[in-house]
Amino acid sequence: MHREPAVPEPVGLADVKRAAGRLAGIAHQTPLVPLLAGVSVKAESLQVTGSFKFRGAYNALAAELERGAVAGVVAHSSGNHAQGVARAARMLGVPATVVMPGAAPAVKRDRARRDGATIVDVGPASDERVAVARQLCDDAGLLLLSSTEHPEVIAGQGTAGVELVDAVLGLPGIGRELAAAGGEGLTVFVPVGGGGLASGVGIAVKALLPLATVIGVEPEIAADARDSLRQGEIVRWPGDDVTRTIADGLRHTSVGPLAFAHLRGVLDAIVTVTEREIAQAIGVLAWQARLVAEPSGAVAVAAALAAPGPAAGARHTVCVLSGGNVDPRAYAGWLSEHPQEGDTR
Amino acid sequence: MHREPAVPEPVGLADVKRAAGRLAGIAHQTPLVPLLAGVSVKAESLQVTGSFKFRGAYNALAAELERGAVAGVVAHSSGNHAQGVARAARMLGVPATVVMPGAAPAVKRDRARRDGATIVDVGPASDERVAVARQLCDDAGLLLLSSTEHPEVIAGQGTAGVELVDAVLGLPGIGRELAAAGGEGLTVFVPVGGGGLASGVGIAVKALLPLATVIGVEPEIAADARDSLRQGEIVRWPGDDVTRTIADGLRHTSVGPLAFAHLRGVLDAIVTVTEREIAQAIGVLAWQARLVAEPSGAVAVAAALAAPGPAAGARHTVCVLSGGNVDPRAYAGWLSEHPQEGDTR
Repeated sequence: MHREPAVPEPVGLADVKRAAGRLAGIAHQTPLVPLLAGVSVKAESLQVTGSFKFRGAYNALAAELERGAVAGVVAHSSGNHAQGVARAARMLGVPATVVMPGAAPAVKRDRARRDGATIVDVGPASDERVAVARQLCDDAGLLLLSSTEHPEVIAGQGTAGVELVDAVLGLPGIGRELAAAGGEGLTVFVPVGGGGLASGVGIAVKALLPLATVIGVEPEIAADARDSLRQGEIVRWPGDDVTRTIADGLRHTSVGPLAFAHLRGVLDAIVTVTEREIAQAIGVLAWQARLVAEPSGAVAVAAALAAPGPAAGARHTVCVLSGGNVDPRAYAGWLSEHPQEGDTR
Repeated sequence: MHREPAVPEPVGLADVKRAAGRLAGIAHQTPLVPLLAGVSVKAESLQVTGSFKFRGAYNALAAELERGAVAGVVAHSSGNHAQGVARAARMLGVPATVVMPGAAPAVKRDRARRDGATIVDVGPASDERVAVARQLCDDAGLLLLSSTEHPEVIAGQGTAGVELVDAVLGLPGIGRELAAAGGEGLTVFVPVGGGGLASGVGIAVKALLPLATVIGVEPEIAADARDSLRQGEIVRWPGDDVTRTIADGLRHTSVGPLAFAHLRGVLDAIVTVTEREIAQAIGVLAWQARLVAEPSGAVAVAAALAAPGPAAGARHTVCVLSGGNVDPRAYAGWLSEHPQEGDTR
C-alpha cells in the first residue's frame, strides 16, 4: 500500500514538536561539541544507529501506527536509512524488510539483520531497488518508508534542529545575544542528500530563530540539489556521476518533490565542497572534536572550514555532523592522508 | 610555595558536589554513549581539552583562588594534565607555566601555548621535570598543581562519576532497577594512571550506589598500581618499563600517596589489559561508538571486552573513556591494524 498523503501540507514547527514528543526518551539528545573557536558540531554520529536517520524513521513509523496497524515496513537503502528503519521497526514491533544491492558491504547487511530486518537482494541499479520495494508493498500490503518523501520523516529529522537551537541558546554569553537578535549571526551548515535532513533542520531553525542563516552543503561532484535550487525545478544528475563522491550518503541523483519544496523555503544558500576538503574535514573532526565522521557527515564541516573568515556580525557556526558509520579500512586511509592538526580549542 | 594540605582529609561526596558546583556551566556534562548491548561509555574524550583532566585542574585552581590570590600555576606534564591546567588557568585569569620535555610532540606544546601557557623545556627524565617545576614554585611563589596529589583535583575528577551515575539511573528500565538495588549489577571500569580519575570516580560511584562494582584498569606492562594494591604499599616500576605501553597517559611509575589511600577504599578490583587488547578497543570505539579514543582512554573498554560473559545479576557496565587526544599518524595505524567490526548496537 502506498500510503502517501494526497496533498502534503508543508511541515511546520508543530509537526517537529510532535515528533520530539514521540522521540523523547527514545532518540538521543546528541551533544553540541566544540570544534574550533566559534564553530561547533551537532554530533548526530552519536545518535541511535550512528546517524540522524533513526529520528525520521521512528517518528514516521510511530505516527503511522497511531493511525492504524502496519503489517510491515519496507525501506530501499544500503545505508543509514535502512539501519534507522530496522531499529525503529524492532522497537515498535513491526516487521521490517530492507531492499539492498547484493553487493552492499557485509557490515551494513549484518547491522540491518541484527535488528531483525529481512534482507532482499537486488542488482546495483537504484531503479531496480525502488521497483522491487514497491512490488513488495503492493503484494503484501506493506508500508514503503521513503527516506525523504514522508512529512513525518522530515519532521523527525527536524528534531535535531530544535535540539541544536536549544544548545546554541545555552552557550555562555553568545546564547543570550543570539536569542535577543532572533538568531542573527548564527550560521548552520547542513548536508543535502535526498533533502530530508536539511529540510527538517531548516524548518526548525528558521521557525525558532528567523534571522539565522541555513546553508545546505553538497559534494561538488554530486551537486544536483544546487542545480535544482538554481533552476527552480528538480534536476536529475546521472547515476554514474553521483557515485564518484566518497560521501556515499549523498549519492542521490535528485532530491524528492516534498524535500525540494521545503529546501526552497528554508535554505539561504547551497555550497559545494571538494573530495579533498571532505577528507580533510574527517581529519579535523577526529583530531579537534574526537568524533568519527562518515564523509557525508563531514561535508558541513568542510564547508565551514572553506568559508571565508567570519563575516561582520558573525556570532556562532554550527555544522550538522549527520553520521559516523564508516568503512573501517577506508576511514583509516582518509586519516593517514590528512594527519594535520590545525587550530585547536 | 608548596601549598599542600598538612593532613589531607579523605575526599568525600561533599567535596565532589562542591566541585560540581564550581564546574557547572564550565565543564561539559559528557554523554553516556552506548557501545554494545549492556555496555556504555562515559565519553570524557568530549570534555573541554579532550580529557577529564580539565575537571580536576579547574576545580583545584578555583578552590585555591577562593582561599586567596594565586600568582601563577605550574604543571609538569607533557600531556592532558598540562592542557587541562593551561585552559583552566586561562579561564580563571592565572598565568600558567608548563614544564615539559623538549622532545614532547609539537602538537602538545602548541596546544598548551595557544592557551597562553609559558613552556619550560627540560630533558626527558621525569625526575628532572619535577625538580625544575618545584624550583620554579619556590623561586617565584607559584602554585605547583599535581595531577593526582591534590584533594580538589581528585574531587574534580569525581564529578565525572556523579554524572555517570545520573546518566545510568536515567537509562530506560535498567535505571530504576539499579536505583532500587543500590547499584548492584552495575560495573564501572576506569583507567588507573596516577590514580586521580579512578579515585574520584570511585568515591562518587560508591557514595551514590554502594553496591556498584568499581574496577581499575592498567596496561599489563605498566601495572604498578595493581602491584601496589596487592602489596598494600606503593610499588614503583622502573621508568623504562612503563614507557613501553602505547597508553601514554598511564606511564606512571607509581601512584601518589593521596590517590593510593583513596584507591584502596573504592576499588573492588584492578585488572590489566594487553597492548593488543588496547588497540582493538580503539577500533571498537571508532566503529561502534563513533568516538576517537586515545590508548589510555581505551583501556577500560579493553577490560570490559576481555571480561568473561555477563555475571549472574549483571545489569549494566560503564567504561570511562578518559580522553581522545591522539597522535594522528599513530591513531590511523592502530585503526588499520584492527579494522574489525564486531557486534553493533
